[in-house]
Amino acid sequence: MATQRFQDDDPNVDGLYADLAAADLQPLWRQEGLLPRTPQRLTPHLWRGKTLRDLAERSGELIGIDRGGDRRVLALAHPDLDGLPFATHTLWGAVQYLAGGELAPAHRHSPAALRFTLQGSGVWTLVNGDALHMAPGDLVLTPSWTWHEHHNPGTEPMLWFDALDLPLVRNLDAVFFEPGGEELSPYQPEKRSRSEHHFTAPGLLPLGAGRAVTVEEPGSDRFSHLLAYRWETVDAALSSLLRSTGHQEAAIRYTDPGTGHDIMPTLRAELHRVLAGHRTASTRRAGSAIYVVFHGSGASVIGGRRFSWNAGDMFVVPSWAAVDHEAEEDADLFRISDEPVLEALGLARTEQTPSQQIPADRA
Amino acid sequence: MATQRFQDDDPNVDGLYADLAAADLQPLWRQEGLLPRTPQRLTPHLWRGKTLRDLAERSGELIGIDRGGDRRVLALAHPDLDGLPFATHTLWGAVQYLAGGELAPAHRHSPAALRFTLQGSGVWTLVNGDALHMAPGDLVLTPSWTWHEHHNPGTEPMLWFDALDLPLVRNLDAVFFEPGGEELSPYQPEKRSRSEHHFTAPGLLPLGAGRAVTVEEPGSDRFSHLLAYRWETVDAALSSLLRSTGHQEAAIRYTDPGTGHDIMPTLRAELHRVLAGHRTASTRRAGSAIYVVFHGSGASVIGGRRFSWNAGDMFVVPSWAAVDHEAEEDADLFRISDEPVLEALGLARTEQTPSQQIPADRA
Amino acid sequence: MATQRFQDDDPNVDGLYADLAAADLQPLWRQEGLLPRTPQRLTPHLWRGKTLRDLAERSGELIGIDRGGDRRVLALAHPDLDGLPFATHTLWGAVQYLAGGELAPAHRHSPAALRFTLQGSGVWTLVNGDALHMAPGDLVLTPSWTWHEHHNPGTEPMLWFDALDLPLVRNLDAVFFEPGGEELSPYQPEKRSRSEHHFTAPGLLPLGAGRAVTVEEPGSDRFSHLLAYRWETVDAALSSLLRSTGHQEAAIRYTDPGTGHDIMPTLRAELHRVLAGHRTASTRRAGSAIYVVFHGSGASVIGGRRFSWNAGDMFVVPSWAAVDHEAEEDADLFRISDEPVLEALGLARTEQTPSQQIPADRA
Amino acid sequence: MATQRFQDDDPNVDGLYADLAAADLQPLWRQEGLLPRTPQRLTPHLWRGKTLRDLAERSGELIGIDRGGDRRVLALAHPDLDGLPFATHTLWGAVQYLAGGELAPAHRHSPAALRFTLQGSGVWTLVNGDALHMAPGDLVLTPSWTWHEHHNPGTEPMLWFDALDLPLVRNLDAVFFEPGGEELSPYQPEKRSRSEHHFTAPGLLPLGAGRAVTVEEPGSDRFSHLLAYRWETVDAALSSLLRSTGHQEAAIRYTDPGTGHDIMPTLRAELHRVLAGHRTASTRRAGSAIYVVFHGSGASVIGGRRFSWNAGDMFVVPSWAAVDHEAEEDADLFRISDEPVLEALGLARTEQTPSQQIPADRA
Repeated sequence: MATQRFQDDDPNVDGLYADLAAADLQPLWRQEGLLPRTPQRLTPHLWRGKTLRDLAERSGELIGIDRGGDRRVLALAHPDLDGLPFATHTLWGAVQYLAGGELAPAHRHSPAALRFTLQGSGVWTLVNGDALHMAPGDLVLTPSWTWHEHHNPGTEPMLWFDALDLPLVRNLDAVFFEPGGEELSPYQPEKRSRSEHHFTAPGLLPLGAGRAVTVEEPGSDRFSHLLAYRWETVDAALSSLLRSTGHQEAAIRYTDPGTGHDIMPTLRAELHRVLAGHRTASTRRAGSAIYVVFHGSGASVIGGRRFSWNAGDMFVVPSWAAVDHEAEEDADLFRISDEPVLEALGLARTEQTPSQQIPADRA
Repeated sequence: MATQRFQDDDPNVDGLYADLAAADLQPLWRQEGLLPRTPQRLTPHLWRGKTLRDLAERSGELIGIDRGGDRRVLALAHPDLDGLPFATHTLWGAVQYLAGGELAPAHRHSPAALRFTLQGSGVWTLVNGDALHMAPGDLVLTPSWTWHEHHNPGTEPMLWFDALDLPLVRNLDAVFFEPGGEELSPYQPEKRSRSEHHFTAPGLLPLGAGRAVTVEEPGSDRFSHLLAYRWETVDAALSSLLRSTGHQEAAIRYTDPGTGHDIMPTLRAELHRVLAGHRTASTRRAGSAIYVVFHGSGASVIGGRRFSWNAGDMFVVPSWAAVDHEAEEDADLFRISDEPVLEALGLARTEQTPSQQIPADRA
Repeated sequence: MATQRFQDDDPNVDGLYADLAAADLQPLWRQEGLLPRTPQRLTPHLWRGKTLRDLAERSGELIGIDRGGDRRVLALAHPDLDGLPFATHTLWGAVQYLAGGELAPAHRHSPAALRFTLQGSGVWTLVNGDALHMAPGDLVLTPSWTWHEHHNPGTEPMLWFDALDLPLVRNLDAVFFEPGGEELSPYQPEKRSRSEHHFTAPGLLPLGAGRAVTVEEPGSDRFSHLLAYRWETVDAALSSLLRSTGHQEAAIRYTDPGTGHDIMPTLRAELHRVLAGHRTASTRRAGSAIYVVFHGSGASVIGGRRFSWNAGDMFVVPSWAAVDHEAEEDADLFRISDEPVLEALGLARTEQTPSQQIPADRA
Repeated sequence: MATQRFQDDDPNVDGLYADLAAADLQPLWRQEGLLPRTPQRLTPHLWRGKTLRDLAERSGELIGIDRGGDRRVLALAHPDLDGLPFATHTLWGAVQYLAGGELAPAHRHSPAALRFTLQGSGVWTLVNGDALHMAPGDLVLTPSWTWHEHHNPGTEPMLWFDALDLPLVRNLDAVFFEPGGEELSPYQPEKRSRSEHHFTAPGLLPLGAGRAVTVEEPGSDRFSHLLAYRWETVDAALSSLLRSTGHQEAAIRYTDPGTGHDIMPTLRAELHRVLAGHRTASTRRAGSAIYVVFHGSGASVIGGRRFSWNAGDMFVVPSWAAVDHEAEEDADLFRISDEPVLEALGLARTEQTPSQQIPADRA
């Protein structure tokens, strides 16, 4: 900090500070914490799956979602974020609950969203008219500025994890939103969506008909044009990798089959499988992540704190917090992060860290 | 908004909301303003050059910057940003004042910075050891994670405009900072810096010695390796364009001569010249900008409000606010923006807007 | 042509021409055909599948391929190319025949190669140690500078189509070649190769283990790291496209699943399916192609000449010759071309052409 | 080579070979030299500047270039290339001579060309209507498919070096050519061309007016939009580099100021300065080059052979031939190569080689 030439109680200095404030100026030398040595703005945090399911069901009973209404969404609100409904500074995480017979009408927005189905069946998400069936473990995309609506024509409720880049886009002051018309879209329920008809095997790209989804706005071709990634293919890919490598862990990244890029310019999605008894190496990265435990149980050490988890739990790994995972039962961890943003802006950093020792009383 | 099945005073609903809050969850249907139709989070704002100069001088008299100290910086603090020392959600703007004989010691940080000199002479900025002389109108870069320090060996004070991507990088929780050692770096004062020796004419790239600045961290080659852009070359470029096109306005973008990319992945810098009597077309863009009036006088209509300006004034154009400029005297407007960020993330939008009519009483 | 100031029989001019020749110089004004209006250096040409099969079998009977030996390859030698064993100026096409029990030992070369299996079974191609089983319709890659060898441990002979960029690389004078050691590589015959274990579904990329094949030389990451594309996936992809679009034709491009780029920087590979009774639009492109009829029968009009074809036939479409295809029976056409080269060099041109009328006597 | 199961004089084998030939097929096992260990298809070769100047002048006296005529061009015809007027397999090199008062009318072609002026003054080259004045040491571009014509309104003849990618484009069978109309284009002789008005300093890119030259065909934005590189800027850049580095050699690459890419997708152009008494390191590269000695004298060792040179001499460095240069007087070597092609196609290789020893009797 700057050495001041005069006493702190110098009336001239007081007058300067008053005049600065009146002129909408702030002296850097009176700021604390603007430039910390390393990121440290967030602590790790975990939400219990049981709590999420219970509260989602109660909301389903008490809060309607009639035509003209909105989404029934419970947002992970990190307690460090002063009441904002955000999981991290850049990531929105939530559970969404749609009861049998309910409909969530169409809208579109510049923030990009994805859905990872947790339980239930029977929901169809329409993305620019392409009808995507949803089942547990499926990942469904609603990219930036695509029209999307959710239909549950069945009787069973469905619960899924929603992730958006909304906190980031809001901070960029680039949120655009447009509600859809009154009418719901008709659709033909088919097992495979249009986008899945176009991408059926690795490395085979359709000519001519390749772009299943088109958006007339800027950025329209910056997201994956495969809109649904089925659990059975992910499960098989991980099994295949484990067999091929002989390792105790494997991971895949969900990408645009036409480019190999992340599914969205702002969001990375991955599935990490850790076999029972295995503990991963510890790493830390600039940028934040949300993990959703899809299968199994175990514990993660995050920034020196140990968090036990079971299927349905969700937790935040803050920027630059070292993290490792240890599986008690074979575990599948769905992970989203803002790493593509940090990479695009030249801010990515990754570090292997020594294995974190947790004191016995904390373990 | 969702229709509620029960009365607002239903105790079950109250209980639900209490339990949600206790579980760090927030119901989306009680959120207002999360998804506005268009960006609208900031109003335009202008700071007077005279005020900036006066307060910078008073700070110079009252606040020391001894060895071990810090920078003497007055940050533009937009009144819409709740006391944060930021000009927009992504951009830091400030004036920095260094009196004769003063030294601002070395440090480095992941946020990128640039300096546009407003008045004075005699300062040398060292960037990873390359000594850059500064004179009015010069643009000097201190890219992400480069060591930098400022020396004023002369007697005259110098005032410059500082711009950083700090608000963005802070929101990404990717701020890293490292202070330098106690010793100031010695340097050889030469008219042209090392980086300027390597880039002397458009299109001629040095082989072998091409990278004047190297940083050992990730992202190190994502910024311009020309570190100083001299006013005389910018002035000549604009004159040449005006002569060649016959237009009443011209603009150049400062770029990496080795790639044509923006000087930083997070910051765009441009110089816009508008001849006396000319009014530009009106456009709006997703993303925010700060303008610094370097020469001339005139007025800008921003989001329907008219702001008159003179040399030294600085003003913010918020995201999606239509803006045009009208020069009374030939005007040079230095402009920085976060557009490279929006472009990298697929969020850029631009729109030509009808010429804005200002009611006589507001003009 | 230049007007000459003196008579053609002017002895001074004769002397000039003699002196130019002696100095290894040639006057442009005496050159003909260096700059034609459009490409016209090659005519279309077709090789009959029956001929190819018969001669391959006879070669198998008469010409050995013992250990220490070479490949049993019959190269398509376009009659316009003055005895060079090339199908076009840039593309090598050939049939290769490997009898039961035969082995083609390891080598590597900078020209890239691919194999499209026509008939037989039981061959394993090893690419940098990864064992790829081959069956009819499978595409197997041996990218630039990868070690490769072919084993036929069975009793049945196998016939496949070989394509290389050898004429191009030879003209660039960039052919490098290295023979392998005396020993054949042992391998574990498994249904799926290592590279296929790593890429199992569209859009799912493995982390960490993603690069199944590595080459330590320049250019090593410029080719597809999926090395085998199975006929059943290609067949299913085309059926899926036809169902989804309702069209009478469909096509897929074989690409690197990690980038969406062509399988090699120099070679494009596609499979075009045309349903019986359908005739495609006519187009022409800068760059040449070889078609291999895998299934079906029909006819193509190429540069105004009509060529009927059956399964096993191969034909060349020269640069800028308009081409369309009409299927008599459902047809699958495997196509390779040098288009990635023309695109990389800014020389690509494509034109839709009016449907070509063929005089009755030629049809 | 394959072991043959039967005697060479087996009539069945003879019959096979005859039938193969009749079917336009060639057996690989009878080919020699298709896959050499390393590139070896060309020897180094040198043309004397005095010879080139003398023959160009004699051609100027004897061969007219009237309206309707062509270019007066003497092509470097490498003796290894069987009478083709090409310097290497990919590069065309030539001298062009335009006497005072002569005009070379407009045409355009897909092969790209550049001109490096050797002597004389007063010529204007028009590129899509932009008039470029030419003086010794200037580099002037006529990119692919741009209209270009040469005017010499003065009295002095001019001699320049022409380089084209014609051999490459011809081998790709992608030559397109279009003659211009009868009328020559009027132009305003100004010291700086339109393209030079748009690019005046490193790193400053014009907004809006940035693209001085536009071509409506594919590939149109793949070349440099700065069309003239003046000798004085190249000379100053090299001096600046030598001063800054303290080395005895320096080199610049001519690039598109908007991208940093090579001036054309197919051609690399560089200027290498070697100070008197200095000998460079020896390197070899896949791909061929032509050097033009602009200033000075010295010698190069190419593939183990020593070539002495003086201003005006031109020589070919074949693919994979090691080369170093030693200057007797301060030397400026203009160099063009096909390296961008090899890089784009994943075929580039470079190797530092031990200093080449030349036996005394050969030196």
